[in-house]
Amino acid sequence: MHLDFTSEQRLDGDRGGDVIEREFTLGDIPGILWTPAPAPAPAPASPSTPLPLILLGHPPLGLRPMYPRLVDRARHAVAEGFAAATIELPGIGDRPRWDALEQARADLGRVMRAGEPVGDEIVDALVLPLVDRAVPEWRAALDALLALPGIGGPVGYSGGVISIGIRLARVEPRIEAAALFAGSFVPRTMFEEAREVTIPLHVLLQWDDEGNERQAALDLFDAFGSKEKTLHANMGGHSGVPRFAAEAADRFFTRHLK
Amino acid sequence: MHLDFTSEQRLDGDRGGDVIEREFTLGDIPGILWTPAPAPAPAPASPSTPLPLILLGHPPLGLRPMYPRLVDRARHAVAEGFAAATIELPGIGDRPRWDALEQARADLGRVMRAGEPVGDEIVDALVLPLVDRAVPEWRAALDALLALPGIGGPVGYSGGVISIGIRLARVEPRIEAAALFAGSFVPRTMFEEAREVTIPLHVLLQWDDEGNERQAALDLFDAFGSKEKTLHANMGGHSGVPRFAAEAADRFFTRHLK
Repeated sequence: MHLDFTSEQRLDGDRGGDVIEREFTLGDIPGILWTPAPAPAPAPASPSTPLPLILLGHPPLGLRPMYPRLVDRARHAVAEGFAAATIELPGIGDRPRWDALEQARADLGRVMRAGEPVGDEIVDALVLPLVDRAVPEWRAALDALLALPGIGGPVGYSGGVISIGIRLARVEPRIEAAALFAGSFVPRTMFEEAREVTIPLHVLLQWDDEGNERQAALDLFDAFGSKEKTLHANMGGHSGVPRFAAEAADRFFTRHLK
Repeated sequence: MHLDFTSEQRLDGDRGGDVIEREFTLGDIPGILWTPAPAPAPAPASPSTPLPLILLGHPPLGLRPMYPRLVDRARHAVAEGFAAATIELPGIGDRPRWDALEQARADLGRVMRAGEPVGDEIVDALVLPLVDRAVPEWRAALDALLALPGIGGPVGYSGGVISIGIRLARVEPRIEAAALFAGSFVPRTMFEEAREVTIPLHVLLQWDDEGNERQAALDLFDAFGSKEKTLHANMGGHSGVPRFAAEAADRFFTRHLK
């Protein structure tokens, strides 16, 4: 798939240098790439080293509503010397609706409003097709992003739907480290896939996440086959990941990708 | 109790400046204090700010065998701008034997060699008297250490027998943050004490610690009453805490004590 840039703007960086934000389309998939702004004109031209890349995962709520948090994470990543990129998930945001996904989300909503337990079939119907469709798209994005001048890898994957992260970590050899957020439903079969993951992992768990089954998150952490895996559990609820936890994830990527 | 220094030597620091190591006695309790070496003579005399202090806990194996690991942790702490200190535990090392403790350790050894489960009575007999005796001694050490010129607090407690850390965090208001190692037997009653701990906590768990009950460690983490509590779980077995985990504990103390 071909990557076309559709817009470019300059943002203030997290500390020091500015950030270039470029929206793109990959076929019909919208995405965003963030890179450090080049040094101002009269500075001595240095042969620029290709940047390691962090793929920013996100929950299936759409790039637009997620933008404020994504740009915050991207600014961090760029300040640490990474390029950062994300793409929209299938069936979400401005992308064409997808009946099976809509149905699964409606079923989940109904069960949760009724206060019933969320059964395996609903989780499977909600997550597995999303993983099956999204993962090849993220891999295609990787092909296109790594072909751009100045972006060279290695590649990390961070956050978002944890099952997408697990599948990517298992099948995509260019991803060398992953920071996963254990905060969403995980289909049973993903525990088997987790055993086949061997790259270094940094797993974030919000201990008091009301909507998340803590024991499943701990079982998943236990299942990962990686020799280096770290679990960071914090307080603050589902969306209250403390700032110091985000910084710890930065350091994890710095340790493994640079 | 009076603190008397009995020896002093200069050690290489972890990065940059040297470390002064002073052995002391507090009554009949041996201890060690580590502080940054003063800047060399002709440097401009700056009014020195009193140092925050980290108390270094350790397992009940004696200060001498634990010295290499303690001095490593102390070098780290001093490089981060802390004073660090430790004292011997009652009944351990060069301190007078203590029949009840010897008996409890013998009982534990017998049960473990027989491959039997370690019952609550053995854990209670082993840990509770140690906590009851050690905690007042650490508080007395705090009185003496904070009275020294150049040491001003705030105070953190780090590592060692976790039940001693829990009790200290609960009863000693001068301790403002604690990094605890969930790697030893915890009496049932300590779970109740844990609920009354409210200071920021950084809890380290070795996920694949053969000699440690993981579920008890997770239950203990859950029990702590602190609004800010973080669990860091890593691989590497009981004594294989990775270097990056030690650095994360340093950053926890820097965030809370400086």
